[in-house]
Amino acid sequence: MAYIDGYRLAQSRVLDLAQPMRTGMPQSANHPPFRLVLERRHGDYVRSDGGSAAGEVIVTSGHIGTHVDALGHISHDGLVHGGVAASGIQGPRGLTALGIETFTPYVGRAVVLDVPRLYGVDVLPAGYEITADDLSRAEGLAGSDVRPGEAVLIGTGWSRLWNQYDLYTGLRDGVPGPGPDAAHWLASRRVRVVGGETIAFERMGPGLGQATYPVHRILLVDAGINIVETMRLHELLDSGRGECLLILAPLPIVGATGAPVRPLAIIPA
Amino acid sequence: MAYIDGYRLAQSRVLDLAQPMRTGMPQSANHPPFRLVLERRHGDYVRSDGGSAAGEVIVTSGHIGTHVDALGHISHDGLVHGGVAASGIQGPRGLTALGIETFTPYVGRAVVLDVPRLYGVDVLPAGYEITADDLSRAEGLAGSDVRPGEAVLIGTGWSRLWNQYDLYTGLRDGVPGPGPDAAHWLASRRVRVVGGETIAFERMGPGLGQATYPVHRILLVDAGINIVETMRLHELLDSGRGECLLILAPLPIVGATGAPVRPLAIIPA
Amino acid sequence: MAYIDGYRLAQSRVLDLAQPMRTGMPQSANHPPFRLVLERRHGDYVRSDGGSAAGEVIVTSGHIGTHVDALGHISHDGLVHGGVAASGIQGPRGLTALGIETFTPYVGRAVVLDVPRLYGVDVLPAGYEITADDLSRAEGLAGSDVRPGEAVLIGTGWSRLWNQYDLYTGLRDGVPGPGPDAAHWLASRRVRVVGGETIAFERMGPGLGQATYPVHRILLVDAGINIVETMRLHELLDSGRGECLLILAPLPIVGATGAPVRPLAIIPA
Amino acid sequence: MAYIDGYRLAQSRVLDLAQPMRTGMPQSANHPPFRLVLERRHGDYVRSDGGSAAGEVIVTSGHIGTHVDALGHISHDGLVHGGVAASGIQGPRGLTALGIETFTPYVGRAVVLDVPRLYGVDVLPAGYEITADDLSRAEGLAGSDVRPGEAVLIGTGWSRLWNQYDLYTGLRDGVPGPGPDAAHWLASRRVRVVGGETIAFERMGPGLGQATYPVHRILLVDAGINIVETMRLHELLDSGRGECLLILAPLPIVGATGAPVRPLAIIPA
Repeated sequence: MAYIDGYRLAQSRVLDLAQPMRTGMPQSANHPPFRLVLERRHGDYVRSDGGSAAGEVIVTSGHIGTHVDALGHISHDGLVHGGVAASGIQGPRGLTALGIETFTPYVGRAVVLDVPRLYGVDVLPAGYEITADDLSRAEGLAGSDVRPGEAVLIGTGWSRLWNQYDLYTGLRDGVPGPGPDAAHWLASRRVRVVGGETIAFERMGPGLGQATYPVHRILLVDAGINIVETMRLHELLDSGRGECLLILAPLPIVGATGAPVRPLAIIPA
Repeated sequence: MAYIDGYRLAQSRVLDLAQPMRTGMPQSANHPPFRLVLERRHGDYVRSDGGSAAGEVIVTSGHIGTHVDALGHISHDGLVHGGVAASGIQGPRGLTALGIETFTPYVGRAVVLDVPRLYGVDVLPAGYEITADDLSRAEGLAGSDVRPGEAVLIGTGWSRLWNQYDLYTGLRDGVPGPGPDAAHWLASRRVRVVGGETIAFERMGPGLGQATYPVHRILLVDAGINIVETMRLHELLDSGRGECLLILAPLPIVGATGAPVRPLAIIPA
Repeated sequence: MAYIDGYRLAQSRVLDLAQPMRTGMPQSANHPPFRLVLERRHGDYVRSDGGSAAGEVIVTSGHIGTHVDALGHISHDGLVHGGVAASGIQGPRGLTALGIETFTPYVGRAVVLDVPRLYGVDVLPAGYEITADDLSRAEGLAGSDVRPGEAVLIGTGWSRLWNQYDLYTGLRDGVPGPGPDAAHWLASRRVRVVGGETIAFERMGPGLGQATYPVHRILLVDAGINIVETMRLHELLDSGRGECLLILAPLPIVGATGAPVRPLAIIPA
Repeated sequence: MAYIDGYRLAQSRVLDLAQPMRTGMPQSANHPPFRLVLERRHGDYVRSDGGSAAGEVIVTSGHIGTHVDALGHISHDGLVHGGVAASGIQGPRGLTALGIETFTPYVGRAVVLDVPRLYGVDVLPAGYEITADDLSRAEGLAGSDVRPGEAVLIGTGWSRLWNQYDLYTGLRDGVPGPGPDAAHWLASRRVRVVGGETIAFERMGPGLGQATYPVHRILLVDAGINIVETMRLHELLDSGRGECLLILAPLPIVGATGAPVRPLAIIPA
């Protein structure tokens, strides 16, 4: 499609693929709670010329809001991607290898796989497991091939539920997500990065407690494919576009196992 | 230039305009120190299938590393941009108006004003005040007009000094930056956003202690122009390009007076 | 009783009146969650002689775990204790007056008012309102007069519920505590400090949402009496002693509205 | 002395042995900086009855201000006190053994060893190494025996320098403290806890960079004796008392390698 190989901003729309970050937003219980606090308020200090500034303290994690998982986020049997011992790359300043700063910003094509549309719904049911067959059929719907080194965005419609804390976090009813065979399908396509709308790019049943993360293992550890979580994809899904120009540039926090990101999608107007 | 109105990624270069974020990086003493700490390390918890995850706690500010100042960051005589009383828009969850979440991500043209090149140097001297005349002459060098609603990036070469903490923070010798008449020049062009390489987009003399921030006042409070600080512009300056496609999407932290950002510049290969 | 006016350590027991502090402990939702994270672990840095150190980052509030409320914690109609405008004593470094650093450590007699014992129970029911009459009768049981400038510890038995998060926080069923007339009774005795076992020294009904804090107002704002919350009193209650030597020395955090404390009670062996 | 075996509060003085804690106070560069920030200010939320509350977020470490080092703070050749592998007692919630919560609050006699007085000065010189002989002679001056299981407070006079950041932190000139033979002297007396006035209970030369911590090793790792640092002893030294009743009850932060404390000394009026 023309706008991928050469587009005019005048004829393009920019879609915001990030959820707003605020104290109390839905987040994984595995990570410290996000908090923004104003330290200085206007009027606390007033300069000789009448100027004053406000500033904040932010306590966060690299896995809160819309964020990219670094390859070093997950290990399996003590090894991270590339067969490196996880114990050897972690320390007081975070990861010394495979941290999020090693993720080169991505500016390129992303194929949009709209799974709910396959089933004529806007939102997949809690706990639904996305299969390889779903992905293949969604690729057909998209009318665009998933290519090596590129990005794939997988819709579940769950960014529509962002403001429903209990539903979105899925603690009671679970969360839809890819199963292992879907992950293998993605790995076999040798994509660079995959993104989803849920808190974790996994299918989760009710409870979550004992959850394992097979998809994280297959993508991060085995295949070396980064994962974007908690994306705001519903506007892109509603556009009906099968592909977009994706701009994905996470904060370069050295040694972090993940980092918040404000991804953008550019599509024809 | 062609790549602005329509470009091919295959013929483009993507430049990273953000400085790496790490504990101990240069930052303004007005803001809480950045800190990244691993909370969970690989092996702390191992799931039944052998999987383990590492995650961090990050303490930061909205004005650390490469970041965008929200219009609500600064007030003058008690008023923020638009003549609104600053006291009425601040609270326990940050700003209730003019927070960084109100900055729409910018994807568009940026003119690159290479001030050091005017003087045949790579790095402007500490404490140098950039004038309106410097900007006009640099615009000529750029061969590209500064247009309303667009972005301007002003080079000082100081991103080359990032790893020299004492020099970069300028506490002893000061920092180069625009003076009030340069700020008025920018305001008169009705640009949307301006960016620079230093810790604060101001000219600062040695000491800094009693510093006022006239440029912040003129741009943020009076003109409603956002400011990007601590940008990594030296690669872009070295490219010799007078303009680029700038992608500027700060984290949408609701109520924050500023937010970290990973800006990208796209230029022809 | 002898041990109050002069005691021998050899014949004394020291009781710990503080609850253990840990991530996830019961706390008020009005305050930021407590978190302890190891920053450096043994082995991260090893000195030339084989030595290594571990250290942490702690994120907390002044109102978490066992803590003392500063007089400046609460205001009423814009005024703090002494009729001072609250707006004039708060800033970027906390309170500039009535902060917890102004609380002189207390070493002296405390009368123990065992309210559950009045009713032949170990734990008062959720939502029970302690009355002035309860306090008078408990004073009789204690066999010790509540005197001006001294301390009073009011038992509810709720420190026994510390490990039952939902019960202890009272979000569903409420929390027992003094009512306004009990607060007036305490104020009329002109005590210096009062302590209790619950998350807030107030009677709370189920829900808590719309709660007002009449007892905080009467004690902190009107009477200038500090409050200790989340105390671990059950051992002291079980001792059957009507009084003890109380040692109460909160951390001297300048400008804090409250501070954690490790109170001790000394009673005859 | 009478006040040790049995004292009357009416005839006693209570001395505060803690330094005030505030943002910017002197602290070891090995630990995260202390910060107190008001999250809610009076007026942010006003309850239906006119009540309002202020509260803070505190970011700290267990080794800031006046604090007690847990036995698990230091390891040597991979082992903590008792020959336990350090790697086995650390995790995402801190130490699982030898954390500060295992330190039983101390209420008992402390001998005061006033080393500066031996030399007719108020403050020991930077970098001075306290010897075993100094301690023996100071014990003589104190007129009180150092006994097993009790506490020893070693004066350097440096709490008088608390407000002189550069001097107190000793980065340029060093800090006085015990040398290894003084540490062996203390260990041979089998005391339970020792306290000092400096940032680290060690003699440090100018620079500190390559410092090893032999005294920490001898006391914490080998002898199992806790260390109190950054104490405010000058009032006690000025009293001329050779002993006091020491109350030392650090915050029971489970898993912490150390914790802030507000120690008190009680001496005859």
